[in-house]
Order: sequence, then C-alpha cells, then structure tokens
Amino acid sequence: MAQKPGIPKGTRDFSPIEMARRNYIFDIIKRNFRLFGYKQIETPAMENLSTLMGKYGEEGDKLLFKIQNSGDFLKSCSDEELVGHNLVKLTNKMCEKGLRYDLTVPFARFVVQHRNDLTMPFKRYQIQPVWRADRPQKGRYREFYQCDADVVGSDSLLNEAELLSLIDKVFAELGINIVVKINNRKILSGIAETIGEADKIVDITVAIDKIDKIGLENVNAELREKGLSEEAISRLRPVLELSGTNDEKLAVMAEMLKDSEVGMKGIAEMREVMAAIDAIGHKGEMQIDISLARGLNYYTGTIIEVKAADVQIGSITGGGRYDNLTGVFGMPGLSGVGISFGADRIYDVMCQLELFPKNLGQSVKVFFVNFGQKEAMQSLRYANALREAGISAQVYPDNAKMKKQMSAADSDNVPYVAFVGESELGKDAIVLKDMATGEQTTLTLAELIEKLK
Amino acid sequence: MAQKPGIPKGTRDFSPIEMARRNYIFDIIKRNFRLFGYKQIETPAMENLSTLMGKYGEEGDKLLFKIQNSGDFLKSCSDEELVGHNLVKLTNKMCEKGLRYDLTVPFARFVVQHRNDLTMPFKRYQIQPVWRADRPQKGRYREFYQCDADVVGSDSLLNEAELLSLIDKVFAELGINIVVKINNRKILSGIAETIGEADKIVDITVAIDKIDKIGLENVNAELREKGLSEEAISRLRPVLELSGTNDEKLAVMAEMLKDSEVGMKGIAEMREVMAAIDAIGHKGEMQIDISLARGLNYYTGTIIEVKAADVQIGSITGGGRYDNLTGVFGMPGLSGVGISFGADRIYDVMCQLELFPKNLGQSVKVFFVNFGQKEAMQSLRYANALREAGISAQVYPDNAKMKKQMSAADSDNVPYVAFVGESELGKDAIVLKDMATGEQTTLTLAELIEKLK
Repeated sequence: MAQKPGIPKGTRDFSPIEMARRNYIFDIIKRNFRLFGYKQIETPAMENLSTLMGKYGEEGDKLLFKIQNSGDFLKSCSDEELVGHNLVKLTNKMCEKGLRYDLTVPFARFVVQHRNDLTMPFKRYQIQPVWRADRPQKGRYREFYQCDADVVGSDSLLNEAELLSLIDKVFAELGINIVVKINNRKILSGIAETIGEADKIVDITVAIDKIDKIGLENVNAELREKGLSEEAISRLRPVLELSGTNDEKLAVMAEMLKDSEVGMKGIAEMREVMAAIDAIGHKGEMQIDISLARGLNYYTGTIIEVKAADVQIGSITGGGRYDNLTGVFGMPGLSGVGISFGADRIYDVMCQLELFPKNLGQSVKVFFVNFGQKEAMQSLRYANALREAGISAQVYPDNAKMKKQMSAADSDNVPYVAFVGESELGKDAIVLKDMATGEQTTLTLAELIEKLK
Repeated sequence: MAQKPGIPKGTRDFSPIEMARRNYIFDIIKRNFRLFGYKQIETPAMENLSTLMGKYGEEGDKLLFKIQNSGDFLKSCSDEELVGHNLVKLTNKMCEKGLRYDLTVPFARFVVQHRNDLTMPFKRYQIQPVWRADRPQKGRYREFYQCDADVVGSDSLLNEAELLSLIDKVFAELGINIVVKINNRKILSGIAETIGEADKIVDITVAIDKIDKIGLENVNAELREKGLSEEAISRLRPVLELSGTNDEKLAVMAEMLKDSEVGMKGIAEMREVMAAIDAIGHKGEMQIDISLARGLNYYTGTIIEVKAADVQIGSITGGGRYDNLTGVFGMPGLSGVGISFGADRIYDVMCQLELFPKNLGQSVKVFFVNFGQKEAMQSLRYANALREAGISAQVYPDNAKMKKQMSAADSDNVPYVAFVGESELGKDAIVLKDMATGEQTTLTLAELIEKLK
C-alpha cells in the first residue's frame, strides 16, 4: 500500500457534516444579505500580481501565493539573474498571477474595471475563499472563506445603521448572543489632536485598549515610555476612565473634544448611527467602545467589531467605513462602508454552544432497504414519487445483508427507513420505520407523502 | 487616471445578474443532488503536486497551474540546475503545490485519505472551481466550475439508473429538453473483439461516430487506411447501420456479440440500466448510442452524455462507470459511477432559449425612496418589519433627487417602490407604487406585508 496521500498544510477537506454546518451558516448570512438588497458578485481566484502587490504591506506581499507562469517561466530571467538569487525580482519575472489574499482588493479592482456598468450606490456581497501563506496554527488556515458586504458610493450613515441591523439579524438567527462594539476613527483622531499628540494615535489607542487589563498606572507608565508629555497623559485620563451608558460616554467625549473639529464630527457621526440603529431596533447589545481600533490605517469613520457574548474568542465579525477604496486603481474619492463575517470563528462558536440544528447530518429523509431486483424496482418508483414531492429519498443500491443496510442508514442519521419486501410487492404498501421511536407502520404511497411533506 | 486594472486572461468576473443566473442553475442541481441522497464535500483549491502530476497525461501536467513555494523557492536548485533551464525539473523543485485540475482526482485522494471515516457506498457531490492553463477561447476558460456527483463502493447498476433519473429531473426543472445518450464500454470492447480487431477500438469508435456525417463508403475507406481487414470491415457493417428503437438496436447487437463474453456482459448491463430508468420514468429521451466513446480510457461500463435537444452545442453533462478510481493512491478495486454537469454550457443554453425566470435581476422587492432624515428613519423601521417577514427591502441611503432615486430603482428591476414622505409621517401609511402597472395605493404596514408575503 502506497503512502496515504495528504493535502498542503494549512488547508482542509470538508466532510459532509462539516459542509452541512458551513452551509447552514452561509445560507443564513446570504439570506440576510439579500433581504437587505446586497447583490452577489464573484471574482477570479487568480488576480494579476500587479493588482495584489503593494496592497497589504511588505509582509503581505510575502504572504501572497504566486502562480508560476505557464510554458517557459524562465524566459525573462537571464542566467546572471538566476544565480543572483534576488527572490523578489525573480518572482516578478516568473509569476504574473497570484491567489487573492482578501475580497476587498479584488472588489476595488472590480468596481474600477466595471464602473460604467455599475449604478452607485452599489451594494455588493461576496463569499469566496482567500489564500494566505501564513504560518498555519490552530484556527488559522492558508485557505479560508470570507463573507463580505459593502456599500460604495454613498456617504450616508444610514448605511452604517443598516449594516449594524444586518449583523444583529444574522446573529439572532444563528442563535449567538453578541456584543457589537462601535467606534469612530474621527473620535480617535480628535483625542490625539486634543491632547496635543496627533502623531501618537496608535500608541494612544493601544493604551486605551489595555486599561482594563493592566490599570491606569501601568498604562500611564507605558505612555510616558512612548514619549507622551505629562500634560497629554493627564488630559487623556477622562478617556481612560470612560464608563457608563453609550449616552454617558458620548457626553464625556463631547465635552473633552469640543475644540476639535474632527473629534466633534466623529461624535456627531456616532450619535447619528446610534440613533438610527436604535430606531430600527436590535436584539444584540450595541456598545460604544473607544478602545476599538481595528484597521486603523484603513478605516476613516465608523469602526465595528462583533464579539460573542458567551464564548471567549476573538472578533467574529468586523468592518467600518473607508474613504478611498479605489484610489490605488486610479479612481479616487469613492467612499464606502463594509463588514466581513468570520465564518471559521462563527463555526467554532456554534460548535461550542451546540447551536447547530440536530438534523443537519441527515443525508435523506427516507432510506429504502434493498430486498432484491424486483423489490428495488418498486422502491425506485416510490423514491421517485417522494422526490417529486420534494422529499429526499434513496434506495440502497445493493441487496446486502439487512444488518449492513441498517448500519448504513444509521450512520447517515436517517429518520425513516422504508421496507418494500416480497409481501409488499404488487400492492400499494410501504412499511415505514421511524428510527427515533422504533415504531413501524404500513402506509400507502399517498399516505407516506402526506405524512412526510 | 491610471491604466484600468484587468484580470488574467481566461478568467471572469461575475456580475450580480450573472451570479443570480448561475445560482439559479446551481441551486436546482444542488437541490436534486440532495433529494437523491448525495452528500456535499469540499476539497482545497491547492493540492500537493504529487497528488496531481501524472493523472492527466503529459499534456495535463503542463496545464496544471503550479504555485511557487513560499520563502526561498530557489533553495533546492543548484546554480547549474538554474542555468540548465530544465523546466520540468526546476518546476518540481520550486513548486510543491498546484491548483486542482478537476474534481475527480481530489475526490479519489479524499476517499483514500478519509476511508476509515466513510461508509460505503459513499454518495458525494462537489461543486467547486477548477483551473487549467488551456489556451483561452470562446466558451473555454482557465477557471470554471464543475458540478460532480459520484457513488463509489457499489457495483450495482441501480446507481446508473438513479443518476439518469437525477439528470432527467435536473433538466426538466431547468426547462431544457434533452437527449441522453447511453453506451457501454464493454459493448465497444465486444465489437472490437468480435471483428478480430481488439487493439483498434479507438479507430472503430471514431468510425462509428462519423457514419452520419460522411456515409458508409467513406467510413470504410478510413478504416482500411487504419489497417482494418476487409473481413473486419464487413463484420462491422451491422454496427454502422444500426438504427431503430433501443430494443431494436439491442437485438442487433446481441446477435452480433453472441460469442463475445465481454460484449454480452455489456448488453446485459445496458438492458438492466434501461429497464430500471424506464421503471422509474423519465421526461427526456434516453437513447442507446453505440458511437458514444467519451473517456474511453477511463470508463469501464456505462457511458452517459447529455445533449440539448433545441440548441447546437456540445455535451452539457457527461459521466460513466469506472473501475479503479483510487488505485493510483494505493487503494485498488474501488468501483464507482459519476456524472458532471457542465455549468457554463448549461448557462449558455439557458440564455439562448431564454429559460431564466424574468425576476432574477431584482435586488429587492421593495425600494423605499429617501425624503430626508425623519422620513428615512420611518422607512428604516418599515424595511426592518418587511425583512422580519422575509420580504427583501432597502432604503435609498441618500436624500438624492427623485429622478436619481427612481432611476436606481429602475436599474435594479425593483417591482415595488415605497414612498414615506412628510404627509405619511406620524401615521401608519405607505404609498406603494407597482412598477409594472404604475398603479399607486396607500397601505398600512400590515397590509403591505400581507400583500407581498
């Protein structure tokens, strides 16, 4: 026997039960995307490297999977270059294409390429795998799905409110209790500006994020180390001690930021978003969180992050508003706001909380035992009639021992087993066994369909 | 303005309307796969090259997209090797992974790798893209989806009958009239054996295929050129002149092949498959076609091909039985039968015959015009209530000119536009315009939901 074949590290096969669970999540997300008017697009797995390179930083360039040119991939490389081992240069000559790293850059490319066919604002959703040559580890894969929804071409904050409502609906339907954390980049800019340390916005945000874990004194010590003045540290204090309801937080911030134009713009935006999502109504908690700073270099307004309330795990969804999605492709000034559902983490949360419906592992509703050629023919006809009525059914293909057939039905978690044996032949009779109760009844085909429909 | 970005040749973006149409096809195929008890799996886009190489012939190896190793991809290559330009050797050293070329080899790898977790017979379906570095041309892409269903671990011919029934149901639901052509590899072997030219099976099959186009005399001339004896050519004549019903064809063949064991096995298998699919019932035509020889080196029993009856286009679905799916991975003796739906061609047929439902391009059912902040808040609440009832809705995010908003609704093919203006505020009233008739009515929210549910 040859060595068992395997798959590249960091990639996964999905078994039928895993697929059923993943589809359960994706179907709920898709259904809600559609209820909100997001339209699906797909882009190719391979993009030109010129589209991808330089969009994810130097580290990101290294994490792109590059596809070797077909045919003579060495034709642009001189012998000197080859033995020179300049990897970046040689890769550029041997590879013109790479696998997409996320759905955002391909979407930006899509918008620019098809801009004459798109009506703005354009609401799109996209659910496709992405690939990253990251070091694989628990919960981090080299191939994973992203589920993104974005609206581009509209500055209106109603878009933010609708995305929050969409998030709320998806998780309510999945049965996951959530806390949605909301921030605004302009408020963070306003804070840095107000305390006179506009260039230290990253250090300040890190400090705000650590306050619960390490306390005020340690945070201030860190800020001193980063070079913040004593005055700045003291002026930052109200932010570090921020607590209470959303309204209380907003009141403190508004007082603090009253002389910062950008800060007050952030406060106004936050107020409008919160008022709108409250007007719509929501089940999950919507919590202003000034420490939230994901994608700081990317987002320019609202920042959103979702945490599961009952499981210790990182963010399960995130997003925000950006001002210049397509500038890098020569189409400036296009603002948008989007979110991305983290399918793998949502899957883990659903498993941990046992939220998947119990019957997801079923292959069919009715499993016909095979008693031989004639009986199987009759069973095929019955199975066909069930399928016509939308009821899934299969006939065991071989006239195997009863024990083997029943064990196949068991392992497929089938709810009903049907017997059409010699004594049922020639009459309209099916013996149906309810696998949960063990109860057996004899039914006509019409009765069977009526019962299972 | 920078140069407009593009995508690699042979790949495609799918716009919302294209996605809606593709989903329409995939959803019908998936629904039927499930009705028949096929279970979904997914495998990674990247497989180890050791899994893929040598499985598709020498030409196929060249058409694999290979992924350059991360990090120092030159580390196994000596300078002599680099300047030696042995492309095959260097590729093997620079690339460990490739993109999957079809779904069959990954499925075989999956079955071997997970054999301890699978109950045989195993019915799986898989719908994923594949990649081939073919020269792109009209209708041939470098990235395209395959939709495969296979049963492995069962020799029963009921599997063939069920696959034929599945094909019949899918195309009936899509509205495409089909002719299903059915052959059996063993009959072809029997013919070659009977006329004493067992090694000329390919030439004989090609000749059978040409008879309608070039006539008996020309076919015989070609066979002479290929080196068939006059006696063989004369004994082949009944096959070339085969016509009539399936039963008539079977009778002629049975008489001709009566001394060939393998030929009579093929006839018996064909009779059993035809009897079973006739017992189940079918809408499309099931036609025995001795000229059908697709995948001659691969299939060992039944061969299936589907043509659209009303459109001139190649095969839109195909499949057959194979005897040794997993032997190449060290697990011999596993028989199976499978089919593959050609999604791109089915799409083209549906377009040509205008079979897609008219409303596929709709983004939402109800489009709320935005009359300003207060009105929009009220509209958001209404939209939320509609979505709770499963009715898709969106609020235009900006208080733009009416003309612009209506034109957005138009381009999205929206069936209903809702107006909540100043005079509707503070009362439970929505003005609804039916975009097909132009009719306007004023409704309460409950009436609106009732009307559209």
